[in-house]
Amino acid sequence: MSRADEPFFRSRWVQAPGRVELLDPARLAPGFRAAGAHCGLKGSGKTDVGLLVCDAEQVTSALLLTRNASAAAPIRVCRKVTDRDRVRAAVVNSGNANAETGEAGYADALAMCETAAAHLGLASEQVAVAETGTIGVPLPVEAVLGGIGEAAGRLDPAGGGAFSDAILTTDRWPKSCTLRAGGVTLSAQAKGAGMIEPGFATMLCFVQTDAVVEDADAALRSAVDASFERITVDGQMSTNDTVLLQASGTSGMPLPAGLLDAVLLQLAIEIVADGEGAARVGRVEVSGAASAGEAERVARAIANSPLVKTALFGRDPNWGRIAQAAGQALAGEDLEEIGADSIDAAELGEDVAEAEIGLRLERGEHNAHVWFSDLGYEYVRINAEYTT
Amino acid sequence: MSRADEPFFRSRWVQAPGRVELLDPARLAPGFRAAGAHCGLKGSGKTDVGLLVCDAEQVTSALLLTRNASAAAPIRVCRKVTDRDRVRAAVVNSGNANAETGEAGYADALAMCETAAAHLGLASEQVAVAETGTIGVPLPVEAVLGGIGEAAGRLDPAGGGAFSDAILTTDRWPKSCTLRAGGVTLSAQAKGAGMIEPGFATMLCFVQTDAVVEDADAALRSAVDASFERITVDGQMSTNDTVLLQASGTSGMPLPAGLLDAVLLQLAIEIVADGEGAARVGRVEVSGAASAGEAERVARAIANSPLVKTALFGRDPNWGRIAQAAGQALAGEDLEEIGADSIDAAELGEDVAEAEIGLRLERGEHNAHVWFSDLGYEYVRINAEYTT
Repeated sequence: MSRADEPFFRSRWVQAPGRVELLDPARLAPGFRAAGAHCGLKGSGKTDVGLLVCDAEQVTSALLLTRNASAAAPIRVCRKVTDRDRVRAAVVNSGNANAETGEAGYADALAMCETAAAHLGLASEQVAVAETGTIGVPLPVEAVLGGIGEAAGRLDPAGGGAFSDAILTTDRWPKSCTLRAGGVTLSAQAKGAGMIEPGFATMLCFVQTDAVVEDADAALRSAVDASFERITVDGQMSTNDTVLLQASGTSGMPLPAGLLDAVLLQLAIEIVADGEGAARVGRVEVSGAASAGEAERVARAIANSPLVKTALFGRDPNWGRIAQAAGQALAGEDLEEIGADSIDAAELGEDVAEAEIGLRLERGEHNAHVWFSDLGYEYVRINAEYTT
Repeated sequence: MSRADEPFFRSRWVQAPGRVELLDPARLAPGFRAAGAHCGLKGSGKTDVGLLVCDAEQVTSALLLTRNASAAAPIRVCRKVTDRDRVRAAVVNSGNANAETGEAGYADALAMCETAAAHLGLASEQVAVAETGTIGVPLPVEAVLGGIGEAAGRLDPAGGGAFSDAILTTDRWPKSCTLRAGGVTLSAQAKGAGMIEPGFATMLCFVQTDAVVEDADAALRSAVDASFERITVDGQMSTNDTVLLQASGTSGMPLPAGLLDAVLLQLAIEIVADGEGAARVGRVEVSGAASAGEAERVARAIANSPLVKTALFGRDPNWGRIAQAAGQALAGEDLEEIGADSIDAAELGEDVAEAEIGLRLERGEHNAHVWFSDLGYEYVRINAEYTT
């Protein structure tokens, strides 16, 4: 299953912001170079180490990290060492998440950061580190450091493909793009909630642009709030989630309004569509809630309900399960009975890859929506049959 | 799969409180009579209407109802009409949950309550009503009322079996018992999280005793807090959950300490073991939490994690998934890394029907535990293949 040949903005829920030219996704935004190498973490000669650098010294950046209290070593290094506003380079590996690996794992992630910095002539605080893959397994750090050196020797403006390969685990298709719009170029590489042997899913995303982005943190947070923060595969927050935005500013132009949002939303929906064993993507929209928090709580309860998710898998427009999940999210109150007329679940039963659910409450004027994957046999197979 | 031939206190986690004599579960505690009838809700001549009455006028009782804001009609009738402290009788049906059925459904549940009261010479407020089964389908109320009349004509002190049958849906085995201890008798009938075509699971439990129970509400809440409130099949709160305790007081003796707790805990664990598609029951114990709320939040996050549940199904002692779920429950904090030495998941991998998981935090002195079912192919099959 590959979506590589389809247009980039292919989801019904994503509108390209004005005129956008799609380029070869291997080509990075001007001012960036990247490369990949094979160090043996994934086997079969697959690219499993990646390096990405912005050549412009005046880079602005934003770095968002998982809030999981059991965060992996690379997250802890980024929290402690990396200057989030001035990230020049990122070093990554796939095949080993370096999570739950204790102090040795922290030292390994720090060594990746320092080694990348040394090869690039940067300080450690200018480098972010991200890892994804098996958890609880010591990182074969010498091999990884060797791979970093190899990658440093072949950095290339057309290295986006190799860098994208370096973050993939069991994604069924690569999630990357390069676009030109409004005089700027934006390139992005993401990996999603594919199964991570034998652990859980991690979401990584790297975005590069030659636009001038003065408040990168605000731009990234806003786009992430409307994309990666609005998806769920199984309600599980990873130990390794990382999103990095870097802007070289070399085009002298600002980011066109909506461009970053549209790109991240498309990537987020692809992560759901490529979720563990996922066959369909659902979007639930809750309207008429008493507050924004209530709307979101109800939408997430529906999106994470295994009963709703199996109904999506089974093409069963079972509005009773939606009413039950909403009622649980509002436990202790009395909704009177949510009837079929306040729930639009008809699309659940249709044979479409992207299904829409609506639930109208009559409690106020707040809305929220969440995208989610279905729950089928493949999810169980993937997560039950791999053993440590 | 039947557990009917096994001893009642069969779970490793339940200790019978002192000497207990097991009686025929069809025999109710003295002072109670019950009966069942077939009115066609379940088909195949199965018992689907039940009636239970306490002949002692001085009954004390407690009635706990789901807090789901989308509560079913019978719950709404109980909330509005029934005097929870003086419930003489219960009328039940299975095969139709009378949930999401609007005002007509409310009128139907009220008619059940009033019809039962009329047959028994009681006031409506002395009768509780409970229903379980399909949701969103109008109740064929005339048939049900006819069934109530039939049941009223054959009330019997040995009618516990028929009453237990009247609440079952797709439970794989009946969950009922009658025991004598400390000069009192206690009988109980429960139905669990078996699949309810095509909706979701409902938990019902009825307990009768001839003990003197002055504060029935306190006794029931305490026992429920340690049993039905500590289990999860799929984290979904039903629209119909109901637990009723009635004490006739005719023995003149108090309830032996721990008896009600042990009975409800055994029934609760059976509900998990008979969960939708369940093959194994897990118990997770979190210790060393900073507060009771935190301990419970972490335990529930682990018990409801689909990754932990598939690991239980796959006999995979995957401690990384436990650390991830705990870290998510404590998002925004820093646990340092939870290592394998703070998680005891070895039993996950053993071929036992009841597996124990321990997680030690180092944040305080509070504990919590939750029982949960695994997540396997059968859960998906049951919930995906039935369509409305």
